[in-house]
Amino acid sequence: MSARRVLHLPRGFSFSAVRAGIKESGNLDLALVEAVPGTTAAAVFTRNRVIAAPVEIGRKHLSAAQGHVRAVIVNSGNANCATGPSGLRSCLRVCGETAHLLRLNTQHVFPSSTGIIGVRLPAEKITTKLPELIAQREASEQAAVGQFARAIMTTDTRPKLASTKFRAGRKTVRILGVAKGSGMIHPQLATMLVYLFTDTAATPAELKRCLRAACDETFNCISVDGDTSTNDTVLLMASGESGVRLSAVKNKFQAALREVCGSLAEQIVADGEGVQHVIRLSVEQAKSRDEALDVAQSVARSLLVKTAWAGADPNWGRILAAIGASGVRIDPNKVTIFIGRQMVCRSGVACAFNEAEAHAELARPSCDVRIILHRGRASAGFLTTDLTAEYVRINADYST
Amino acid sequence: MSARRVLHLPRGFSFSAVRAGIKESGNLDLALVEAVPGTTAAAVFTRNRVIAAPVEIGRKHLSAAQGHVRAVIVNSGNANCATGPSGLRSCLRVCGETAHLLRLNTQHVFPSSTGIIGVRLPAEKITTKLPELIAQREASEQAAVGQFARAIMTTDTRPKLASTKFRAGRKTVRILGVAKGSGMIHPQLATMLVYLFTDTAATPAELKRCLRAACDETFNCISVDGDTSTNDTVLLMASGESGVRLSAVKNKFQAALREVCGSLAEQIVADGEGVQHVIRLSVEQAKSRDEALDVAQSVARSLLVKTAWAGADPNWGRILAAIGASGVRIDPNKVTIFIGRQMVCRSGVACAFNEAEAHAELARPSCDVRIILHRGRASAGFLTTDLTAEYVRINADYST
Repeated sequence: MSARRVLHLPRGFSFSAVRAGIKESGNLDLALVEAVPGTTAAAVFTRNRVIAAPVEIGRKHLSAAQGHVRAVIVNSGNANCATGPSGLRSCLRVCGETAHLLRLNTQHVFPSSTGIIGVRLPAEKITTKLPELIAQREASEQAAVGQFARAIMTTDTRPKLASTKFRAGRKTVRILGVAKGSGMIHPQLATMLVYLFTDTAATPAELKRCLRAACDETFNCISVDGDTSTNDTVLLMASGESGVRLSAVKNKFQAALREVCGSLAEQIVADGEGVQHVIRLSVEQAKSRDEALDVAQSVARSLLVKTAWAGADPNWGRILAAIGASGVRIDPNKVTIFIGRQMVCRSGVACAFNEAEAHAELARPSCDVRIILHRGRASAGFLTTDLTAEYVRINADYST
Repeated sequence: MSARRVLHLPRGFSFSAVRAGIKESGNLDLALVEAVPGTTAAAVFTRNRVIAAPVEIGRKHLSAAQGHVRAVIVNSGNANCATGPSGLRSCLRVCGETAHLLRLNTQHVFPSSTGIIGVRLPAEKITTKLPELIAQREASEQAAVGQFARAIMTTDTRPKLASTKFRAGRKTVRILGVAKGSGMIHPQLATMLVYLFTDTAATPAELKRCLRAACDETFNCISVDGDTSTNDTVLLMASGESGVRLSAVKNKFQAALREVCGSLAEQIVADGEGVQHVIRLSVEQAKSRDEALDVAQSVARSLLVKTAWAGADPNWGRILAAIGASGVRIDPNKVTIFIGRQMVCRSGVACAFNEAEAHAELARPSCDVRIILHRGRASAGFLTTDLTAEYVRINADYST
């Protein structure tokens, strides 16, 4: 389940990546996936009202092609967002040229972009490099997948990969996930691109149901900075090459997809901009899961809570204040809070606890924080982070 | 309208402040206002579900005394919040002892506390100092008001005072405001205590109407860090000593109160923790004022926007993304954004603009950012700030 281990590579996909000069750093910034004929797909997108050109076109292509995808073309270094009609034309030109070179229908090409907003996409840099990109593609090669994962990075410090497999009789189904994202991370997606590949055979509708369920428990339960991006995309593609129908292995597939998405979500949060500590929030005994998520998001967004975590400061009063500001009609006299293994607040009031131990637990790379509302039986897990001066430095310097 | 100028002091109030040893710094941390008999009052409080003991008791006392107040007792250094029944007892003990020494009914004493959450209030430190505090009170002395303003500070770097006066025939009505607050600043109040004093004569209901209207346009339109405090209180007291009835000067009074509250709101934002730049957001052509405020708050809360401002970076793409994430059904292709005097985004797309000039305007102590939605005729002004590494430093170090 990590980038360092051998990946389980589903059959039916080939990968490649090149340097197109979109990133000023000169790093890999253009990537391609080609899928075998018959590959089905489903996607979920950002809920931001401001959406980038590739999100608009990706959604249209997927719909026009009735859930079939043959190629994914991704660039980093430029989001092609807030670029108006010319941004749409640039995106279509990239899709069209990719389709032409691969002898596909343009609707079977799914585009993504990530990077700075409001700057014209240098489409000519991309189209010039397409022949080289296409020539280099390699089927299910670990190295090629690794290059693909690097090419979609922006402020990420490491590539994000996860994979798993399960048996279905004598056959094996594999799921591979590749993700990027480290700023603008908040529910309803983030500057997050996630590509999930499997060799099961499935209809687009089956894929959509499985993808939504997996996202709700993983990518929609993470927050780094509370910002929702304009380009977020999670795409699930099924090649059918394993010979196993999804309908025959539905529960196993859902669990495996959940596992891959969960691993990628954790990797995204752990690589959050300037993050020192990952906090595993658990909100328990809420009246509903939505209510638990509202409380979790209010805590995960509070700057005072996040800066306290940056100092590994067990300041539970700020957590309580953020719970109180969530809009949920909690009774503060019933709220209990744990930091690490210790109860620090019982029924809304301080407990005696070992501050040095709580400080030490918060200083670790990850720490559990449990919030018990005593209102009902629903709960939610949520991954979030501290907010450090390094985050401010990264984001105050981004485009200047 | 500033702390440096001569204050217009309404008659009927006396002020004092002492060092009670609640703040570790040894600075002034206990303050008293005494008001003449017959003084009426109205207050608005935090909408956080977690409320501090003095907020609970202040609300009860004001209600039980039918809007009459004779004394305000404030401590800084400890919020007396999340302190359970013993916190309520401590607060009542402070009110009771103040009432006893001033020969008042306990219900006529209005308490406030500000500082750290979840730590027992050292009531004995306060009650020991009450005789000295009461002995020192001085009627409408500029120096005493200044001491009062200093005693209620926490992380504030300077006291916050504003005053004005207006003529009513041969008589003069004065309004004085004293405030504290610099972190946990967000609409529906903040770790913000505001005391407003006037010598007009008014019923509690008249005061309440004027206070709500003034707050909606001032204290409810500011945000430093998006956190809503547990102790926020705005208290307006009217001594009647000018001999002018509020009902006879309603419009003048409302405008004067708006002016004092507006000045205090600006002072609070400008003194926000770690703030380098104040941003005067203006959201225009919205369908309703609430919609304009939703957009303003989404922008004011975005860490990516606030960190860009810290770098004086005219990154309007982040502003557009925050507008899109506000929940308001804006059409991104109709959004226009100005930074300082320049249009930087027209109809959702980049304009040609002078980046060096935009950078220079954002680098000033305050800068205007205008967002035009092209949806209707409503608008809202909103004061907010950048987010700096210094904010993180202040808040990562608070209690450890």
